[in-house]
Amino acid sequence: MTTTNKVVTVTLNPALDLTGSVKELDLGSVNLVEQGSLHAAGKGVNVAKVLSELGAEVTVTGFLGKNNPELFSQLFNDIKAKDAFIRVDGATRINVKLIEQDGRVSDINFPGVTVTEADIRAFEETLFALAKDHDYFVIAGSLPNGISPQLCASWIKRLHQLGKKVLFDSSRDALRAGLDAKPWLIKPNDEELAEFVGRSLTTAEQCQQAALELADKGIDNIVVSMGANGVMWLEQGIWLFSQPPKAKIVSTVGAGDTLVAGLCWGHMQNMEKEPLLQFATGLSALAVTQVGVGIPSSEQLHSVINQVDVRHTIITK
Amino acid sequence: MTTTNKVVTVTLNPALDLTGSVKELDLGSVNLVEQGSLHAAGKGVNVAKVLSELGAEVTVTGFLGKNNPELFSQLFNDIKAKDAFIRVDGATRINVKLIEQDGRVSDINFPGVTVTEADIRAFEETLFALAKDHDYFVIAGSLPNGISPQLCASWIKRLHQLGKKVLFDSSRDALRAGLDAKPWLIKPNDEELAEFVGRSLTTAEQCQQAALELADKGIDNIVVSMGANGVMWLEQGIWLFSQPPKAKIVSTVGAGDTLVAGLCWGHMQNMEKEPLLQFATGLSALAVTQVGVGIPSSEQLHSVINQVDVRHTIITK
Repeated sequence: MTTTNKVVTVTLNPALDLTGSVKELDLGSVNLVEQGSLHAAGKGVNVAKVLSELGAEVTVTGFLGKNNPELFSQLFNDIKAKDAFIRVDGATRINVKLIEQDGRVSDINFPGVTVTEADIRAFEETLFALAKDHDYFVIAGSLPNGISPQLCASWIKRLHQLGKKVLFDSSRDALRAGLDAKPWLIKPNDEELAEFVGRSLTTAEQCQQAALELADKGIDNIVVSMGANGVMWLEQGIWLFSQPPKAKIVSTVGAGDTLVAGLCWGHMQNMEKEPLLQFATGLSALAVTQVGVGIPSSEQLHSVINQVDVRHTIITK
Repeated sequence: MTTTNKVVTVTLNPALDLTGSVKELDLGSVNLVEQGSLHAAGKGVNVAKVLSELGAEVTVTGFLGKNNPELFSQLFNDIKAKDAFIRVDGATRINVKLIEQDGRVSDINFPGVTVTEADIRAFEETLFALAKDHDYFVIAGSLPNGISPQLCASWIKRLHQLGKKVLFDSSRDALRAGLDAKPWLIKPNDEELAEFVGRSLTTAEQCQQAALELADKGIDNIVVSMGANGVMWLEQGIWLFSQPPKAKIVSTVGAGDTLVAGLCWGHMQNMEKEPLLQFATGLSALAVTQVGVGIPSSEQLHSVINQVDVRHTIITK
């Protein structure tokens, strides 16, 4: 098998994250934010950032509102990603995250753009033109107004039929519809998996059982991320389990996206399975020790990767 | 006296208004906004919009963050304003306004850009180049980090010395410092005036007394807006009072900016004093019956203007 460093990440519903720290929120009044940040986000965008830092040649696509694309353009420029996003009317959604002094976090998620038939046609043209010279496609995140789970599933199906490797990371209805379209790899976390099977999953064994139900749908790779409890990966009936080292958690935002990026890169580089899972788990474990996504230093990365335990049986701490 | 239709509006600290409706805010949870809007705002920007709709040839300047200028660029394009804003590092501040079903409004105001010495030099060059062929300058709103009230006052003073007519609409420290620089017209509302004189002003007579204290500073025109209680205007020792018709208030956001625009336009067009105050008061009264700033229709405008009562004595309802 040959290696490749070309990949497409698809973010159908990107977001601008507006994060602010306040002493204490006083509803009905004027609250002044002490420290704020506004940055381009969305699962596929985060995956693109990590893949680019790993050395991939990334093309990004999906839908961006015409009213506020700059921070995305800047990011794509910074990470040298090729911008193939379709510009649509309106503003990309803004997710406001307010952190109070006592640690309480409130999310206020604004609605995003509505994608039209013409936008969809433009996106499909772009996506399938990219399929001519790309083998790996990461489709990650939620769906905007105008894109049904079935439509998204139809894209996965067509990419599958073209022999493409689709890594699909979504939740709820989009995940449900997408699974029938045979993505090549899915990466639900334990909560998303529990929601999918409709029962709570409190042990690794229960997660394993639930993952087996997904395998029946003909999905080549099922990766379940379980936070500090590690990652389990089912491929061709073979299980692999990984356990990251204990770490001081700064922010879990983007940890799942980093795992997807690591899994994708490992496959693109044709790594052996065990080092691949070790690498992706370590990459993701490092991500929770920092704010935002990205690789702080390769020494740190290698140190964390070396502390990841990978086995063929469930690892219990 | 000749008329002019050229005017400069200065917005030192513009903002993006992110407004959303939610059923009920649940702190510590994820809240979904049902209806949201993001638009370019700031007092000087609002004044520019109204002046442009009145027929003025507007140049806009001030400081805009490089990270999110599009909605401003779009607006300036729509209103055919000349964009002379200085682009600075960072994002223009975002003011989040959350409206709950029961009518409670919470404001969460994010910090904006920090203006550097180099930005200031670029702005001063722009401003005083504009002074070569403009007579009217509206300086409105708050100050960003990096601009002291004294610095702002120095610009007003220099424009005054150049014989320019500066309409200055700010509050707190910026207002206090700016007053000593002899702006040509100021328009505090009753609350800002009360804060300035350091005592509560509950009647029109008390507002009148407080305005007289400002007149001692050598300001040609002192206009005090008192919401539904109308407007009082002191010029060369002569008082004029106006009373708008009763109206169903939809939003008072931008009503003061609309009054400033009306006062500015009236002077630019060399209107007589009484029709000028009648015009500006009617324009502002119409603004409260709608969301956002702008003139819905000239018939509506003329109808409201005709219902404005203007007298030389305090009008009591």
